[in-house]
Amino acid sequence: MRLALSLAQENVRRGGGPFGAVIARGGEVIATGVNRVTAVHDPTAHAEVQAIRAAAARLGTHDLSGCEIYASCEPCPMCLGAIYWARLSRLYYAATKDDAARAGFDDSLIYHELSLDAAARSLPSERLLPDEADGPFAAWRGQPDRKPY
Amino acid sequence: MRLALSLAQENVRRGGGPFGAVIARGGEVIATGVNRVTAVHDPTAHAEVQAIRAAAARLGTHDLSGCEIYASCEPCPMCLGAIYWARLSRLYYAATKDDAARAGFDDSLIYHELSLDAAARSLPSERLLPDEADGPFAAWRGQPDRKPY
Repeated sequence: MRLALSLAQENVRRGGGPFGAVIARGGEVIATGVNRVTAVHDPTAHAEVQAIRAAAARLGTHDLSGCEIYASCEPCPMCLGAIYWARLSRLYYAATKDDAARAGFDDSLIYHELSLDAAARSLPSERLLPDEADGPFAAWRGQPDRKPY
Repeated sequence: MRLALSLAQENVRRGGGPFGAVIARGGEVIATGVNRVTAVHDPTAHAEVQAIRAAAARLGTHDLSGCEIYASCEPCPMCLGAIYWARLSRLYYAATKDDAARAGFDDSLIYHELSLDAAARSLPSERLLPDEADGPFAAWRGQPDRKPY
């Protein structure tokens, strides 16, 4: 966790956001990540997502079961979703969501929005082409060598 | 939306997952994305995330306000979080979460988990080093040329 916190602090000095993350397995550091949203123009480049991408690339698998993630701050919904998809086994964090909100990074709106039905969200959303929507899934079901995950 | 669906279907033929996304602005396609999770060993490489990254890179900003996203399927929590962070103005989707679950891609567990307090989630999580957690935020507050987002 000290490494995640020092990466976060160092990232601020380099012009990035105050967030860092480390993925480890059995005490060995597999990969690290820092927030690069404004630096590389990627709204998904949060520290946890960057660390997950780097760890998956290093281990050659999208399945990070058995690894744990150390995040300098409690993850936002996007990063928490990524942690579940990556099947990380354990999450450690230092600062809380409330600490992040006080520093100007408030993801409580997003947590709240995700808990609502689509029709109640502030993001306008609409279903289109329902009659054609099954095409990709039909192709998937017909693919003998598909890789489920 | 027809482009998103045909990208999804084509991606299955290329060994990827049955998901595609298109980001457009005022009728012009800015970027596209398909699911590359197993192909590139990246658990975050969902179609929507890939399209957001490509659009942000093309426009040179992490702020995609004024753009809309067409997703072949209703987004998972990670992608929906990414859509909020990217400030996309509107979401269109074709297949529903239930259609995806029937095809073997069930994100209802993740939606449910995100709605719970950390202590109630299936993912074990624990706070560490609370007394050192403010270090990165203190550095951020002291950075005169910080870029808030």
